[in-house]
Order: sequence, then C-alpha cells, then structure tokens
Amino acid sequence: MKGKYLPYINCPQDVKNVPEEELDVLAEEVRRELISTVSKTGGHLASNLGVVELTIALHRVFSSPDDKIIWDVSHQSYTHKLFTGRGKKFETLRQPGGISGFTRRNESEHDIMSGGHSSVALSAAYGIAAANKIEGNDNFTVAVVGDGAFTGGMVYEALNNAGRAGTGTKLIVVLNDNEMSISHNVGSLARYFAEMRATPRYVRFKSKTEKTLNAIPLVGKHLVSGIYNAKTYIKNIIYNSTMFEDLGFRYMGPVDGHNISNLISALEGAKEADYPVVLHINTTKGKGYEFAEKAPDAFHGISAFNLDSGEAVYSEPSFSDAFGSFLVKAAEKDSRICAITAAMSLGCGLEDFKNRFPDRFFDVGIAEQHAVTFAAGLSRGGMLPVFAVYSSFLQRAYDQIIHDCAMQGLKIVFAIDRAGFVGADGESHHGVFDAAFINTIPDITVFSPSSFEELKTDLDNAVYSTEGPVAIRYPRGVDSYLPEDFSVTGEDFDIYGDSSQKTAVVTYGRCFSEACKAKQLLEEKGISVFIVKLNKIKPVSNEAVKNVLHCEKVFFFEEGQRFGGIGETFGDKLFKFDYKGIYRNNAIEGEFPMQNTVKGLMSHYFLDCDGMVKKISEECE
Amino acid sequence: MKGKYLPYINCPQDVKNVPEEELDVLAEEVRRELISTVSKTGGHLASNLGVVELTIALHRVFSSPDDKIIWDVSHQSYTHKLFTGRGKKFETLRQPGGISGFTRRNESEHDIMSGGHSSVALSAAYGIAAANKIEGNDNFTVAVVGDGAFTGGMVYEALNNAGRAGTGTKLIVVLNDNEMSISHNVGSLARYFAEMRATPRYVRFKSKTEKTLNAIPLVGKHLVSGIYNAKTYIKNIIYNSTMFEDLGFRYMGPVDGHNISNLISALEGAKEADYPVVLHINTTKGKGYEFAEKAPDAFHGISAFNLDSGEAVYSEPSFSDAFGSFLVKAAEKDSRICAITAAMSLGCGLEDFKNRFPDRFFDVGIAEQHAVTFAAGLSRGGMLPVFAVYSSFLQRAYDQIIHDCAMQGLKIVFAIDRAGFVGADGESHHGVFDAAFINTIPDITVFSPSSFEELKTDLDNAVYSTEGPVAIRYPRGVDSYLPEDFSVTGEDFDIYGDSSQKTAVVTYGRCFSEACKAKQLLEEKGISVFIVKLNKIKPVSNEAVKNVLHCEKVFFFEEGQRFGGIGETFGDKLFKFDYKGIYRNNAIEGEFPMQNTVKGLMSHYFLDCDGMVKKISEECE
Repeated sequence: MKGKYLPYINCPQDVKNVPEEELDVLAEEVRRELISTVSKTGGHLASNLGVVELTIALHRVFSSPDDKIIWDVSHQSYTHKLFTGRGKKFETLRQPGGISGFTRRNESEHDIMSGGHSSVALSAAYGIAAANKIEGNDNFTVAVVGDGAFTGGMVYEALNNAGRAGTGTKLIVVLNDNEMSISHNVGSLARYFAEMRATPRYVRFKSKTEKTLNAIPLVGKHLVSGIYNAKTYIKNIIYNSTMFEDLGFRYMGPVDGHNISNLISALEGAKEADYPVVLHINTTKGKGYEFAEKAPDAFHGISAFNLDSGEAVYSEPSFSDAFGSFLVKAAEKDSRICAITAAMSLGCGLEDFKNRFPDRFFDVGIAEQHAVTFAAGLSRGGMLPVFAVYSSFLQRAYDQIIHDCAMQGLKIVFAIDRAGFVGADGESHHGVFDAAFINTIPDITVFSPSSFEELKTDLDNAVYSTEGPVAIRYPRGVDSYLPEDFSVTGEDFDIYGDSSQKTAVVTYGRCFSEACKAKQLLEEKGISVFIVKLNKIKPVSNEAVKNVLHCEKVFFFEEGQRFGGIGETFGDKLFKFDYKGIYRNNAIEGEFPMQNTVKGLMSHYFLDCDGMVKKISEECE
Repeated sequence: MKGKYLPYINCPQDVKNVPEEELDVLAEEVRRELISTVSKTGGHLASNLGVVELTIALHRVFSSPDDKIIWDVSHQSYTHKLFTGRGKKFETLRQPGGISGFTRRNESEHDIMSGGHSSVALSAAYGIAAANKIEGNDNFTVAVVGDGAFTGGMVYEALNNAGRAGTGTKLIVVLNDNEMSISHNVGSLARYFAEMRATPRYVRFKSKTEKTLNAIPLVGKHLVSGIYNAKTYIKNIIYNSTMFEDLGFRYMGPVDGHNISNLISALEGAKEADYPVVLHINTTKGKGYEFAEKAPDAFHGISAFNLDSGEAVYSEPSFSDAFGSFLVKAAEKDSRICAITAAMSLGCGLEDFKNRFPDRFFDVGIAEQHAVTFAAGLSRGGMLPVFAVYSSFLQRAYDQIIHDCAMQGLKIVFAIDRAGFVGADGESHHGVFDAAFINTIPDITVFSPSSFEELKTDLDNAVYSTEGPVAIRYPRGVDSYLPEDFSVTGEDFDIYGDSSQKTAVVTYGRCFSEACKAKQLLEEKGISVFIVKLNKIKPVSNEAVKNVLHCEKVFFFEEGQRFGGIGETFGDKLFKFDYKGIYRNNAIEGEFPMQNTVKGLMSHYFLDCDGMVKKISEECE
C-alpha cells in the first residue's frame, strides 16, 4: 500500500488525525488502492469509488464502534475496511481465507452487521437506535443506503416504523444517491430522485446557499444545524414534496457526496437534529476511474480486469448467458413470454431480451417479493412470465411463491440463477437454500439441469409441458463436463451406468458432472457404481427411487443444505419402499459455507469427484 | 336471506339493475345479512361492514370478471361474494366444505386471486394490467387495499414499479382508509393519512367542492373526470405533499366511502384517467353495527357472538394468552426483554405487555420482514427481543431469518403462534410450513411445546439457555390433554412408555397429546408402543434417534409439511445410524390443507389418535 497517509491508518482515530486540508489526498490514495486491488481480486469497484469521501466524513464525524455505521448490502464497505484495521489484509479481499467483500461481524468490531442482501440496513439501524434510547445512551446509528435499495419495500417498512420514533432517536439515514440501482434506474422513485437533483430552481438555490455557507464562519454546530434546517425548510417550499418528511423523518440535502467538508458539515448538522434524519447525498459511481465512471454497470461486480484498458479478463459463456439466449429464442416464437428481473438484468443474461422485447421486459427494482406476485398477475392476465433471479435473493419471496403462485396454481417460470456455490461473494450469496425451501412448497415443479443443453430442454419442458409454477435452477459458472456416452433425455431422471450394480450414486445439477468422473475413478479402484441423475428434483420420481431398491449402498450428493433438502426426501422415499440397505446423504451440514472458490467449496463438502470417491470408498472397501 | 333486493342478486348485473335511489336499501340488507351470518359462523365482521357501499359501487361501475377486482387480504370480500353467485351458500361461510372467508379462485370466476396475506393485491393487479396493455384490451384492474396493508413494503415495491407504467395502464388502486390497521394505527403513514383527513383546510375545500358537484348536473363522464382532476390539482396545492404522485400515480380523494353516489362518481372519474390512479376513500370499520363500530379490533376476526349484546361466546384461554402472560412475567424481571408484533398485538396475546411496558413494545405494522431485522438490531443493541408472529405470516421473513438473524448469530426469540392447523381461515393461514422452512436454516434452535406448562419452560430455555436465534412454536387453540404420569422436563426429548418395546411413535407439539391417547387405544388392541416426544425439533437430537434404533417399526407424526419437514430429517438420521427397520412418516403430503375445523384436519391427515391407531395398526396386525 502506498501513500502519505493511507499506510498509517489502522483505526478510525487515525482518519481523524489526518489534517483537514489533506483529506482529499487521503481520498486519492484510497482510490488508487481500491482500483489496484480490485483489478487483481475482482469485486465491487464502482460503488466503492463512489463512497470514498463519504467514508472519510463518517469516520471523522462519528466514533465507531460506539456510534454504529451500517452499510446496506455492504458491497461499498471497502474504504471502511481500509480504515478499520484491515488495510494490511486488503490484498486478500474475496480470496479463500481472506477478508470478505462485505461487512462481516467476525472480521471486525466495526462491522456492525454482516451484509450481502439489500434494503435491510435501516431496519437493523433503527433496532440499535431504539435499544440505545431504551438504555439511555447517546450513541448514534447511521445507515448508509443506496438509491437502488430504496426500490426494496423493507426500506419503507423501516421508514414508516422509525419515522414515528421522534425526538431522542439518534438515527441517521444517508441516502447515497448515485443515480442508479445495480442494473439501472427503475421505477418512479428514480424519477423522483432525479427531479430533486435536476430542478433548475434547486440548482440556483443550492448555489446561493453554498455561497452563504462559505461566507459564514463555522462558529459552531448549532449554526450549521440551523442552516441545514433552514435549507430543508426552503427546499420543502421549493419542491412542494418531501416523501421522507411525510414518513416522519427530517430531510436534508442533496449534498455533494464528493465534497468532504460539505459532507462533514451535513453530518454534523444531522447529529444536531435529535430526530431521525434522512441525509440525501449525490455521488458518482466509479468516481475517479474513467472506465468505471463511463460503464458503472460493468464495474458493479467485476472479475479481475486490466488496469490500463479497463477490460475484463475474457470469460467463457456462463449458464446465465445460455439462459438469456434460449429465452430470446423462445420469445421470438411465443409472444406471451415475458421476462422479469429484480435489478439483475445484466447478471441474469437478460440484456438481449431487454433490447429485443422492451414491452415484455420488466425490471421491477430490487423487489423480489413484488416480482413474484407481479409475475402471478401477468400469468393471470394470459402471459407466460419468466422471473430470472439469483437463488439467494429469491429467498426473500418465499411467502409469495407459496401464497401468490403455488396456492393459485398459476403458470410462472422461475429461472433460478447462481443455484449452488457462488465462490468469492461468500455466505450471504451462496444459492444453497433454494432446493430445500422450494421443496417445502406444494404444487411446484423443479428442474435442475447439469449442462447448457439440458437447460434448453428443461426450459422448454417448463414453459410448455408443466402445469402450475415451475423452477429451473442452474449454477454460476460455465458449462459442465459430461461424458460422451451420456445424452440429454428430458426425462424426470436418467440412469448412467449399469443399474444392476449394488452401489448407486444419486445426484443432480452440477454434481452429476463430478459423479461421472468419480464413477470412472472408482472403477479404476475396482468399485462399480451407477448413477441416478435427477433432472426433476421436485417431485422426486418414485421410479427413480425404485431403481436403487436392490442396492446395498446408496449415496446422495447435494450442492445445498442437507436439512430439508432433496437428499432427505429421497431417503424418506427409500423408507416408503422398504429399502433395507445403507443410505448416505452428503450435503451441507446446516452451516453457512464461507467464501472460497467454487472448486474449493465443492472439495470442502466432498461434492467434487475426489470427495465422492473418498466418501464411497470409505463405505465400500 | 331477507330483503327486497339481496335475495334476487345472483351476479353483478343484478346489482346494476337495482334502481340507483334504492342502493342504500340494498346496502342495509347486505349489512343485516353480514351481521346475522357472522354472528353464527364467526369471521371478519368490522372490515366487511366498512366496504358494503364500496362493493356496490365497484360492481356498478366495473364489469367483473372482464374488469378484475382484487381484494387485498380479501377478508373484506363477503359482500363481493354475496353479489357473485354465493348468496345462497353464504350460511356455509368458513364451515367445513363451505365457502371461504377469503377470495378463492376455485370458488368463482369473480375471485381473481386467492387471498389471505396482506399487501399483495397491487402487485398482482399491476401484472394483470400490464398483460392487458400488452394484449391491447381495455379492461380495468382494480386493487382494493386497506390502509393497514400500506405498512407492508410490498405495496411500495408495486407502487414504484407500476407508477412508471404511465398512459394506457388501466389500473386503479382503491386505498380503503378505515383509520386502522388490524391492530391499530402504527407508523408514520397512519399519521400522514390522518393529516390528509383532518386538515381543516381540506374539510372546507371538500365541503365547497361537494356543493359545486351537487350543483352541476352530471352531463357526462368527462365532466366528472374534469372535476376530479381539478380537485386533485387543488389538493396538491393545499397539501403541499402527495406521496402517491411522487410515486407516479394520479391521486384522487379522499371520498366518503359510505356515500354510494360519490363513490360511483369517483370511480367513473378514475376510469377516465387512462393512467394509474390511487383513489383514497374513507370508511368506518364496523359501520352500521354499534358494537363493531365501538370496538372494531374485537370485531376484526371474531368467533360466533351474541347478536344483541355483541359479546363473544366464552372461550378458554389459548396458547396465545398463556404466552402473553409468561412474557409479561419475564419482562417484569428482565428489563432487556422487548416484544415486537407485526400488527397482531391482540391475536398474539400482547395487549397486557403493551400496556405494562410501552417503551419495550413495538408494533411495526404489517411488516414481518422489517420486524425480524429490527429485532436483530435490538439484539445487537443489547436487548432481548421476542417477535410474536403467526406462523403463516412469518413465511414472509424467511430471508431475514437467514440473513439478518442466523448469519449474524444474534439472540432473537421467535414466538410462532398458530403453528399447525388454524381451522376456518383455511389454506392461506394454516401454519404448516414453519417447521419445514426453519429446518432449512443453519444455527437456529426450535422448540415445539405440547402444553402451556411446557411453553413456559421452553420460553425460559429459549431466553436464557440457548445461543443464537431460537423459535418456540405453539398451536392455535387451548391447552392439550396430557397424561397424569407425564411430566415436563425441559430436556431435548422425552420418552413416554416402555422404551424396550419394538414399536415407537415419534412426534412433537400438539400431536403428542393425540399420541398418548393412541398409545392407550393401541394397548387395548394388544399393540404396545412407546413415544419419543421431541421438545427441540431443531436440531433433532441424535440421542432421541438412538432410542429407537432397536425398533422394528418407527412411526413419525407431524402436523406440518412432509417435504423438508422434521420427519424427513429424523428418517435421514435413522439411516445415518444404520437403522434397518420400517419407518413411516405421516404428515401433510405436499398440499394446501383446506378450511375445516382443527379436529377435522387432524383426523383428515391421520394425526389424531384414531388416525394414528389406524396407521400403526395397518402395519402391526
């Protein structure tokens, strides 16, 4: 790490000790460090470059960890990490055993909550602020929430609840308005924010107020606070509308989020309010790195890239890409097909669909609950909706899948991306729950393809040959190895190998590829197995179960949670058919898998070919 | 059914045929029918009495089912049912095999979506409206949403998304503002609505406008529409704030929700907008029944009651009552204990807590997601939060339990009320998922007491002897029968009977009571069994499993979903310990249990003593 100040910062007090006139130098040093490290490790770059000045201001004005700073999602917490004792480990960002790309409670006392999912910070922050009020202490709680996260309903639930807390509640919400959510501005709120930023009357007002601010010596907090209160009051008159004040908050802003002294003044003003405050700041995603400023979408979550060209290292087509192209082909032929995303158009491979069929493409914002019920409505109206969503984010719509899809018997297709381990994003992002939680829901069908080709077949099956709601789940990553003598059938399950053998391996999805390799390795050790590959994992086919009843040993391998998972359901069916042999269920044993490469995780949980060989050999030798 | 008009109404057209000047007569007839029927069947009374005029106006102005009326939650859809062919069956309301207390797609083509859960109607309605726009038809979609439902974040997700749909989107949201959510007004939004209602300037304006309206002959829809647009415009100036317009909707109102001709005019105006509209109406819960108007809370969801006195038939103390009193006792001794409810203070037995410890009581509105993460924040701030919630509503916070509780390792207590069958409320309300969905989540402990006494013991264990998040789940209803020779131990599991027997029954919760009776009945038939009663159902104790390994037959009975449930996990552990006998898992086989009495449902799924005897006898004779 290089620089005049950054290498010597080990705790927030060190940030406070940097001379005020040198803070821009510190900001520049932080930016260089972020760009350099993320170009090697991959990670979230654009959002972190946007909050360098904000992070400096927060650690100047507040005393963490007594005052608690909560980063929503927390993909923008890199600078916070640099300032709170993790500078020397920063090069291990997102690496196996290294520091997380999100806040993690076990990493630092300054990481107040472990993050990863959107729109939750204000709820947690209000809880802490309410506890502080009950306990009678004077600590502040600050939630930093991006404009994208405001498309998630939980923020309103929290605003509505916290807005009534009133005097004595030391709660500050920093609305980090970077003019885009993850994918791009969606919904009316984005327009509302844009109007607040763009109104010429406001710009004139802002300019005049700033001159006034500059002309008045900063004689004390009360004056600053007074000015901000006045500013708010005037703004109310100008704008004729402040949703946040309707919801019970004091509203301040917008403030230039790259002007450290303005930010410090505003935060000092917010502290004086003695009332829940929303402080609206404007920042630029990717600030200070030309390529990221121009294409913040591409630099949201990025793999390693070339520092000078800004170009990502080439990657092979992913399951997301394959899904996107299959869906476009389907939509060309069938005008009922609609695509829905919750702010993940790029990640889910839907950019082409969006451009080709704008009338049938819906980006609903970071709003998985609404997405599911909206899809149900589209279906009720005669469309064929396909909701493409990351597995770990679909968790948020569990009730809507039950109540608004399964209970209605409506045809809705869930394209569940990143089902299984995701690698470096770690415990908040692994898609290791979807198989288990959908398993609990009646009247829904789930496919789990192992290859691009099978994804295509399953998508076709899902859309045209399945009643009611249906999910197709596929992993993060590239196409899988499959043996040449295996062909995709589109049946509920396939048998690979000689089914008269006495040892069976049952599995699905990406694990099938590993099982095929394991079969080969086991044969070399003199152990003969055959594989039952489940294509439809819900309902589990009785016929698939009957194919292993003659076995002495059955091994199930599942890239997902064991408790409530498909392996348990398979075992229950073995009992139903009075199977008397050995059954070994291998999955994630009720824990949150850590950050690691996908390969590393498959190995750790004995789900790669070597792990399978080990588990089977132990019982068969 | 009595009356001049109501007995002859079989479809919406019949409502349209009633002379306009006689609509108040029809309203009165409907009210008598509602009060009379609900006094016998129980159900939702206050909310239905509030929307009689609205329902008449909707079926006059719109043509169901081409125009689609979606009732949020749909506990207020009784009048709609009377008007759509279900008048003659109305006396079967909420009875086994009778009509549902909520909209049900399989009941009528006029029930557009099956209801039960809050804050979803607008999402579904926008989906239908979007489909209509794609298809190019002119049908309207109307969502009727109560003010309470606006405390749920999904409404904002939908407003934000739909508000950008713009011209040609035939979507009308009727905000039915009855000045209370289920429990009582919570949050800032309630204050915002109240201000809109109460501002003297508005009242003067309204009065003047109404005079103007009355003075102008209704020469056509355009005039009405014009007046409403003007009214909106003036109101904007007066109020200086319209959150709904910020979110992209045209806002109209407030309108007197008990004045049919005003409602008709307003709805006609909304139709003319050719743009998403929020129509704000004011209604009185319990309107027309003195007792319900005075105590709408008590008449929200009510059992059978005396028509003349308004008094409920006496009922024995419930698990909710027992929980409430235990929590108050705990809070007396420990000032860290906080209670949280999502608008279900009365239903969850928290009224006494609310009154005794107002500073530690939080009603967050119908906002289960926020409730969970807010509880996590309280815990992070040093409190001991207890979130009391109905099982079927906790489904909405699945992701928050994973991400904001389990992944944080924070101590939060979930008091899961109505776990298991709930009876007459039917498929949307049965608490038959919680055991299964929490089973999938790492690092959380779940207790399932069988009696009040055990609930007390488990609550104590949960609060003081368990690490991390913990749930206690208990059924809807009164205390269970337990044999005199059984005593509560507070251990992870109990053995009841002679554990050297070769047949074991494994169960938990309310089923244990039935199992004890079944054991007796089986002994009379010469079949000896012992019972393993799980107190802690997650994690399933290995020791409990070891106690049945010598058995020839093991029967698991579970009042919950089979797939992903505790019975499957128990079976998986039997395999782990190489059990070679018969295992029979009896639970709900992946379906939505219908409305029925709890007793009827226990019998239907072979979970009562007779069902258990039958299932066990089949295998043992």
